[in-house]
Amino acid sequence: MKMNDYIKLIDDKLNEYIQIEEPQTLFKSMKYTVTLPGKRLRPVMCLETCKMLGGEIEDAIPTACAIEMLHAQTLIHDDLPCMDNDDYRRGKLTNHKVFGEAIAVLAGDALLTFAPQIISKYSDNLSPVTKMRVLNEYFNYAGARGVIAGQVVDIESENNPNIINKEKTLEYLHIHKTSDLFQLAMRTGAIIADADDDKLNAVTQFAKDFGLAFQIADDILDETSTFEQMGKTMGKDKEENKLTYVSLYGLEQAKCKLSCKLSDCRDIMGKQNFNSKIFNEIIEQIFERTGI
Amino acid sequence: MKMNDYIKLIDDKLNEYIQIEEPQTLFKSMKYTVTLPGKRLRPVMCLETCKMLGGEIEDAIPTACAIEMLHAQTLIHDDLPCMDNDDYRRGKLTNHKVFGEAIAVLAGDALLTFAPQIISKYSDNLSPVTKMRVLNEYFNYAGARGVIAGQVVDIESENNPNIINKEKTLEYLHIHKTSDLFQLAMRTGAIIADADDDKLNAVTQFAKDFGLAFQIADDILDETSTFEQMGKTMGKDKEENKLTYVSLYGLEQAKCKLSCKLSDCRDIMGKQNFNSKIFNEIIEQIFERTGI
Repeated sequence: MKMNDYIKLIDDKLNEYIQIEEPQTLFKSMKYTVTLPGKRLRPVMCLETCKMLGGEIEDAIPTACAIEMLHAQTLIHDDLPCMDNDDYRRGKLTNHKVFGEAIAVLAGDALLTFAPQIISKYSDNLSPVTKMRVLNEYFNYAGARGVIAGQVVDIESENNPNIINKEKTLEYLHIHKTSDLFQLAMRTGAIIADADDDKLNAVTQFAKDFGLAFQIADDILDETSTFEQMGKTMGKDKEENKLTYVSLYGLEQAKCKLSCKLSDCRDIMGKQNFNSKIFNEIIEQIFERTGI
Repeated sequence: MKMNDYIKLIDDKLNEYIQIEEPQTLFKSMKYTVTLPGKRLRPVMCLETCKMLGGEIEDAIPTACAIEMLHAQTLIHDDLPCMDNDDYRRGKLTNHKVFGEAIAVLAGDALLTFAPQIISKYSDNLSPVTKMRVLNEYFNYAGARGVIAGQVVDIESENNPNIINKEKTLEYLHIHKTSDLFQLAMRTGAIIADADDDKLNAVTQFAKDFGLAFQIADDILDETSTFEQMGKTMGKDKEENKLTYVSLYGLEQAKCKLSCKLSDCRDIMGKQNFNSKIFNEIIEQIFERTGI
């Protein structure tokens, strides 16, 4: 399947899974952020991992969509005034700017249990054991030991100019904030394909490296692009003292680190004989966008 | 088991299940609200339902504790400035007053997946099918079709003085805000005890009636007690225009409705030959506290 076919499939299913029930404000708020136009990178990587390891794409669709819902949940809450206080997301007003803060908090809360419910409800082709394994991955990466740990350390590091080990802190927070959702996507894809431990470990490492690469690229693009090129909206100042790969290591060394992480990803693909045009394309896009 | 034995058991297990891991702020924030002293009514009702229907209390402990964690999650987010903006809860500072708004949002988020993870991790005695049924109940009552639906309608009704059917709205919001957690507690207790559909339906109806009684009693006590008697802290004004059973029906008719709901609960107990000192005690306490 090509990238655009994957995106179309995922968008159709997201629309199907979230119907506007009562109370309508809540479901509209949930659907608003989940269906914002996007690259659907995490669900694509879930489906592609499943296919690459011999599984059926169809079996992984509910899980892939659940991961996109979880991703939307993190965006809704990260954008809140008490967190990053962002007015725009992907060129559209953020959830709380449209629905108000209270509904945005509740829509995020609702997605956290709506997502695993989708896995439970629609994964008819999975055995009870596999379904439970997928749910356990979800609980782990969505929770206090996963993506939320990253967000907490991010907040704490912003308020603390005297971090002892900045390198370690930066890596920790991005492994959790960014890599964890990619790990969840690829690990569940592998589990649904009934991959052995060796393959599961390999995709876990790939996702960890890829997540860091993704974040370093983001930091580089933030530094080098003008606001217009980045598609950012006016009115939001660059955060000057934020801990990023560029602020910590400088632009050249950040590019070097990015190149290393992407090479690590390609090495894993090579060693494991992973054959995937999609993953090669995704890696290539990061090379191209950052000009490394 | 007596009420105090149940409470001790639940408190011990809650303390055991939530260890202070990294990032410590997050786990401390989660544990802070979950372990606030309380009556533990929902987990007690889960354990007692299981026992009453012939199950083993031990098998229901992880689920009972997960429901208390979910309850704590709803309190943390309901107390936020963008919701009820409460500074105190059970005589202690609310979560966001201690840990800040951002951490309070994230601690609530974390509990929403930590709770089902506890069910999944510690319910070794449950068959995969039973465990999945319990998780599905959790997803349903914790989510957009459960307790969150109630909170959304509550918020919407506060901002709307022109509700067409106030009676229906009031019942809807309390069935979801209050009864749903009792339904979750009793239904999962029954499912773990392997109860048949007839018994499951009976405890569902009991929990629905009991939740409404609980809320009506709360409205009556809010109206008739002084702030000191209610254990409330200074500085919070009574919400004058709030839709309650007393504001809508008047004190006497509210008492009458409360009495009816408690009688309905007793009728179910009688018809089903439910033999439980704990449930009789819980019902009796509401009669006594409200003086009906």
